[in-house]
Amino acid sequence: MITSISNPRIKNLIQLQKKGKSRREQQAFVVEGIKMVLEAPEKRLKEIYMSESFAKDEMHRKAVDEKAAAAGCFIEVLSDKVFKEVSDTMTPQGVLAVVGMTGCDWKQMLAADQKKEKLILVLESLQDPGNLGTILRTGEGAGVDGVILNRTSVDPYMPKVIRSTMGSIYRVPVAIADDLEEVIQAMRKSGMKVYAAHLKGKKNYFEEDYRESTCFMIGNEANGLSDTLADMATDYILIPMAGQVESLNAGVAASLLMYEARRQRLNVH
Amino acid sequence: MITSISNPRIKNLIQLQKKGKSRREQQAFVVEGIKMVLEAPEKRLKEIYMSESFAKDEMHRKAVDEKAAAAGCFIEVLSDKVFKEVSDTMTPQGVLAVVGMTGCDWKQMLAADQKKEKLILVLESLQDPGNLGTILRTGEGAGVDGVILNRTSVDPYMPKVIRSTMGSIYRVPVAIADDLEEVIQAMRKSGMKVYAAHLKGKKNYFEEDYRESTCFMIGNEANGLSDTLADMATDYILIPMAGQVESLNAGVAASLLMYEARRQRLNVH
Repeated sequence: MITSISNPRIKNLIQLQKKGKSRREQQAFVVEGIKMVLEAPEKRLKEIYMSESFAKDEMHRKAVDEKAAAAGCFIEVLSDKVFKEVSDTMTPQGVLAVVGMTGCDWKQMLAADQKKEKLILVLESLQDPGNLGTILRTGEGAGVDGVILNRTSVDPYMPKVIRSTMGSIYRVPVAIADDLEEVIQAMRKSGMKVYAAHLKGKKNYFEEDYRESTCFMIGNEANGLSDTLADMATDYILIPMAGQVESLNAGVAASLLMYEARRQRLNVH
Repeated sequence: MITSISNPRIKNLIQLQKKGKSRREQQAFVVEGIKMVLEAPEKRLKEIYMSESFAKDEMHRKAVDEKAAAAGCFIEVLSDKVFKEVSDTMTPQGVLAVVGMTGCDWKQMLAADQKKEKLILVLESLQDPGNLGTILRTGEGAGVDGVILNRTSVDPYMPKVIRSTMGSIYRVPVAIADDLEEVIQAMRKSGMKVYAAHLKGKKNYFEEDYRESTCFMIGNEANGLSDTLADMATDYILIPMAGQVESLNAGVAASLLMYEARRQRLNVH
């Protein structure tokens, strides 16, 4: 049992929780809670940690032990005090794991399975971790093929994003692009339609046809999409708003667009 | 200028921020930030408070002074330290106001404007303040006529809900019902269709017709709708989910349903 926060493994866990740089260098991130640990892909599971209290719960412990055995991964018990230091939550569930990232390149994402009509989301400088988590969760539900972020967006591997994905972080391909303009150019060249959710839109979002390969661009919560990126769109689309609403939450806006594409593709009109 | 937190007005502000009971007794709540203060309906504005630093910003101060004059309401400067104690945010904008609630009864909500097809949301034991805020904001955008909550739902006047409504709290009628079963019975009797978002649904949500008076019921984040309430629905509806997603965020689910009704009512198929 580890009882000191000066233990090098503990120090590293804290770095992985707090620092995007550490996560990038090690190509790994921390997940918390029984659901997230048990759902983690076995090939990517590196280390599992339980609190002393959690380890005494036989049923949960057995499930976690079996997961560790199946994954062939390191497992260790931490004193409750040390566990609390490492956890990102106020009331820790008592189990967490280090999971490897899957390198995902936006070029691969666009090249994959050319026969299938794609649904991709581009997020420009999205800042709120809860919004990104919601977008990944809803995105999996809507059947997106991937999400592409720029470097000024929130880090998809930070604890609060991971939590709000409810496990979708394992399954939705996420790529970080140096230059979103290059991404959109490549998409347009491949014949994909690229829509910008924008107040300048003349057509409502449900008046366009998303049954062929489609990308939706969503901008920063406060400032929306940059003009440069918006100008590269096939078309602007508008989410009609009654009352005095100036904009919708970015996670909600993205969800409405993705599910409109899903509705159309399930072929109900 | 108020410089002590033992000032009775300050004590009361803190009570209004922290306690639902105080808000209910006084039928008032606190809003923070320049946008929320300037958008407040003048008849309902009771008191405005600025921090010392905020009061030095001439442009902002002028706007707030004019608002106070128009509303004929009490206005006072607080020392920065006192303001920070009263504020619910980590980085206070330096201006807040006490706003009166509008008593809204669910019976009035159903009786209003019988000629118009209604769109109403019933939330059963919704817990997350951010979800409720998002639902009110999106609800205004989608043109809902009102939101009805039961008493075990999160308090719609707590600071975190208010913030995430982005002002919609002023404009979307919110009623709290003692007994949601009675509400649904009254709705069904009036001919309104009541849909339960439920995993047992056989039809996708976009396969029903929402152009006549419609109510959507949304349940608790962890447990969904109670069986009692779900059984009272005209029909169950399903949000189709790809991948391994078990459910969507309650705010997202409500948003998809409300905007599907909006899409149909804008008569585009």
